[in-house]
Amino acid sequence: MDNMQNRLEKYLPPAEGEQKLLADAMRYSVLNGGKRIRPRLLLLAFEMFGGTGPDPEPFMAAIEMLHAYSLVHDDLPALDHDTQRRGQPSTWYRYGECMGILAGDGLLHQAFETVALALNGSAYPERVSRAFYVFAHKSGVSGMLGGQALDTLRSEMSVTERELLDMYGMKTAALLEASLMIGAILAGADEQIIGILEQVGRKTGLAFQIRDDILDDPSADENAGSDRKNEKPTYVSLFGRDAAQRKAEQLSCEAAALLNLIPADSDALAQMIREMADRSC
Amino acid sequence: MDNMQNRLEKYLPPAEGEQKLLADAMRYSVLNGGKRIRPRLLLLAFEMFGGTGPDPEPFMAAIEMLHAYSLVHDDLPALDHDTQRRGQPSTWYRYGECMGILAGDGLLHQAFETVALALNGSAYPERVSRAFYVFAHKSGVSGMLGGQALDTLRSEMSVTERELLDMYGMKTAALLEASLMIGAILAGADEQIIGILEQVGRKTGLAFQIRDDILDDPSADENAGSDRKNEKPTYVSLFGRDAAQRKAEQLSCEAAALLNLIPADSDALAQMIREMADRSC
Repeated sequence: MDNMQNRLEKYLPPAEGEQKLLADAMRYSVLNGGKRIRPRLLLLAFEMFGGTGPDPEPFMAAIEMLHAYSLVHDDLPALDHDTQRRGQPSTWYRYGECMGILAGDGLLHQAFETVALALNGSAYPERVSRAFYVFAHKSGVSGMLGGQALDTLRSEMSVTERELLDMYGMKTAALLEASLMIGAILAGADEQIIGILEQVGRKTGLAFQIRDDILDDPSADENAGSDRKNEKPTYVSLFGRDAAQRKAEQLSCEAAALLNLIPADSDALAQMIREMADRSC
Repeated sequence: MDNMQNRLEKYLPPAEGEQKLLADAMRYSVLNGGKRIRPRLLLLAFEMFGGTGPDPEPFMAAIEMLHAYSLVHDDLPALDHDTQRRGQPSTWYRYGECMGILAGDGLLHQAFETVALALNGSAYPERVSRAFYVFAHKSGVSGMLGGQALDTLRSEMSVTERELLDMYGMKTAALLEASLMIGAILAGADEQIIGILEQVGRKTGLAFQIRDDILDDPSADENAGSDRKNEKPTYVSLFGRDAAQRKAEQLSCEAAALLNLIPADSDALAQMIREMADRSC
């Protein structure tokens, strides 16, 4: 994990010179811990297919920056109004609302600039171009950002299981899909396998979000997260803890079964997916 | 201009389905008028070098989306707190602060997704990759976004002419530089010419921003813009209207002189630069 921290850190702007404050806020947002799930999934998928091809590191950094930006903007007063993130002051709460908005914007810019730099001069321009498209598409209006927009509109009154899972699929799963797909694309995997990994990412992402709902469930913990505070429906609030646990396990099993269709050693990836579903924090 | 509106419109998400509100806010932010300076500069540079190569239209749309995103976030209450933009309610004022943040984010995502789509399958991958890098670099932490961050920190007490022009160079000129460079890169112009156009863009951008300061000068108009309201220093507030007018004219002349170094018909571009410096709105 410390190793991962070092690998991410060098793609962030240095906290010096006239942009010190902006860079500080960006670095704080990325380097304040976190499970690094997306870059780890990306690297596992890359290694699963032999690990030769363009360096996956710029994409590992870029996808973590994109994830961090989404949290920074999600925490803003106009959205979830969260003052804490990973046990520390959230970015806007520490640096002010203005710098919270700009640091999030900066991470989104920096993620794409990192990809652009990786593409120029690459010995594998087709793979990197394809990975760039997946990165852009899965994070944008029809992916993560679109899910974020739906999330802000959801109300307990009207949401069905299907609608909730569609929103989770965009907001949470899309970036996990992208991580697995990009790792495989960079390593030169074929289209059919990339399609399977997209499904693995979707099921893993849905299971991960439902597990999040269980861990955040306020009926189990008075200090639970902001979703209940904001009265947003979750899988747990709609269907109860037991049904949520069953659903998460079912999705994880389906993801593992899909992995078995891939003619490559998927043990490390399968183990990580299990850990994500079983996690207690 | 109506033609330009149509050319931009098709790269925006359709205002229908579950993302109707987000798409509405994004479309409102881009399609509410504006001078379309960046896509027009990009197209003029492309045509100046023969106008053959990859279709410039996706980049024209992407750079206008990027410009629109910067205005949407700049207008937010935590930044300039502007309720009006181009004579209409600003995006956050019309759609709420939450959707203002997300619509800006969405335009930034959509800009890069548009570029990614243009790259994949392009018959000119090297030119488009290079254009993508310029696009990312000039808009990010060392370009437009970095200038925005400096702008929020500037105070009348400390800023020198050099610091103010450096900030204008990032916040305003960087995207004009990118427009000219990208048009030329897509048309296959050589490195030396692209370097000259970068300088033309910088001088044009500085002149444009100083002209903005003059038009916004509250000593001439009680209804002037938000910079004075927020007590930010401008070229006019620091050096007076006459010096500002002389500086803008000098920069425009220098830009025109640089254009003369380029062995191509630059009349249309020179005329547009003159119009930008002489504009009265």
